[in-house]
Amino acid sequence: MGVDASWISETVTSMGAAFSLKVRRKLHSVQSPYQKLDVYETEHWGNLMVLDDAFMLTSLENFLYHEMMAHPALFTHPAPKRVVIIGGGDCGTLREVLRHPGVESVVQIDIDEEVTRAAERFFPELCESNGDARATLAFDDGIRWMREAPDGSVDIIIVDSTDPVGPGEGLFGPAFIADCHRVLAPQGILVGQSESPFYHMETLKNYHRAMVAAGFTDRRSLLFPQPVYPGGSITCTLASKGLPLDVFREDDAGRKPFPTRYYNAEVHRGALAMPEFIKDALSVL
Amino acid sequence: MGVDASWISETVTSMGAAFSLKVRRKLHSVQSPYQKLDVYETEHWGNLMVLDDAFMLTSLENFLYHEMMAHPALFTHPAPKRVVIIGGGDCGTLREVLRHPGVESVVQIDIDEEVTRAAERFFPELCESNGDARATLAFDDGIRWMREAPDGSVDIIIVDSTDPVGPGEGLFGPAFIADCHRVLAPQGILVGQSESPFYHMETLKNYHRAMVAAGFTDRRSLLFPQPVYPGGSITCTLASKGLPLDVFREDDAGRKPFPTRYYNAEVHRGALAMPEFIKDALSVL
Repeated sequence: MGVDASWISETVTSMGAAFSLKVRRKLHSVQSPYQKLDVYETEHWGNLMVLDDAFMLTSLENFLYHEMMAHPALFTHPAPKRVVIIGGGDCGTLREVLRHPGVESVVQIDIDEEVTRAAERFFPELCESNGDARATLAFDDGIRWMREAPDGSVDIIIVDSTDPVGPGEGLFGPAFIADCHRVLAPQGILVGQSESPFYHMETLKNYHRAMVAAGFTDRRSLLFPQPVYPGGSITCTLASKGLPLDVFREDDAGRKPFPTRYYNAEVHRGALAMPEFIKDALSVL
Repeated sequence: MGVDASWISETVTSMGAAFSLKVRRKLHSVQSPYQKLDVYETEHWGNLMVLDDAFMLTSLENFLYHEMMAHPALFTHPAPKRVVIIGGGDCGTLREVLRHPGVESVVQIDIDEEVTRAAERFFPELCESNGDARATLAFDDGIRWMREAPDGSVDIIIVDSTDPVGPGEGLFGPAFIADCHRVLAPQGILVGQSESPFYHMETLKNYHRAMVAAGFTDRRSLLFPQPVYPGGSITCTLASKGLPLDVFREDDAGRKPFPTRYYNAEVHRGALAMPEFIKDALSVL
């Protein structure tokens, strides 16, 4: 069976690779001031959100990404209370963060309100905690927000961004990462979506370089499956301000008072293991 | 950019998903008595071998699969000497097994000689150990071979098979798995390619069921990236005859006298962690 007009494809031209999903119909399409947003009903993966022709998430597998963007950082910090999410407009990461009872405030800053409006309609399960009194949803420029935020005012910054092109580009840049370092309190953690090591190793290396330059004391890239991205895997990278990242609250993670579908304490420990080819690539920084 | 005739796609109809690679030209095509075999030169992944329209391996990423099929089992067994590979005609797993100096003999039984002939031409690096005095390459029916093999005569059986359709089908069946159990010596380990948990969870569950039924005392599925399979991840499943599989020769793995690009002792330990959704699925066996 060929990939015809009843399929939607994401192509990574630089690697001559594409991933396609068979769709039933287009549910939604809007050109926002920042990007093109489409939502499809797929044959087997529930709904699919696409931004500028890049697959963002499906109903079926988004748990992998959202859990890994939230829980490793939150179970590494000794007592995270003040969390900021830059991007993350689908609200799935926000939902995971709010599962931690010790968290007192979460500010989510996505530049594109259309993403959240589409998530509310087509991924309502991800938005089920948006009414939590601890949550603030802002639609603003995350780069400017970070530039203006007070020193040492945040425990965890989660950069839940698109690829480093279009609106996501500046979120991979050294100036933004340096601002994150300044805004984090001692023991603070920055965690960002850092692409696939099979496709974008240079992006990953540059991300680590910017973290070193900003003064972060430890860095770890965690590899995890992402079945609807071409290449099938993605990393999140954690960087800390004075905290070792190979230690986390394993007992708390083992007794977490909420369900997960991918994350658990063993998976967290396991994700800290770095494959040889990634270790080699990052050793030359 | 669309997926047109200059791309080769593998489609998983049951999941409405496809992965495609851009190719420069077809290098080889043969219909063997068992399957259709094609080799392409891709734009970015080196050469690609395709069996019955399913992607088998590329030059760029086959290290992930071959290392994970060989090293976890070989570093778990206390002293593996006699190894049998069923399938594995591309010889990449054989090469990894032969890196272990304690291994005294490896018999590889692939039903289709065309696979090895194509590997010799288009993936010569995988065949570089085929002349090792410890290696025997047989082209025969692995199911019959196992049925006729003496009790307790093998330390490790590696089932490096295609998907459970066509020539690979019987290699997932209970009769074959029971034969493997009989042929393994005490402390012996069976390891088999066991598909993606995102696509074929029932296959994985049935594999575990057959292992339980055969009398294996411990079982572990290790998830690892496989960027050119739709879904991007795959599992190998280990089953042992009296040996716990959560313990391995970590010191030996840490001091391994050969290079790897994915596997290391931490990755092995990490791969033993089971994500919640896989744990849940296997808990109901």
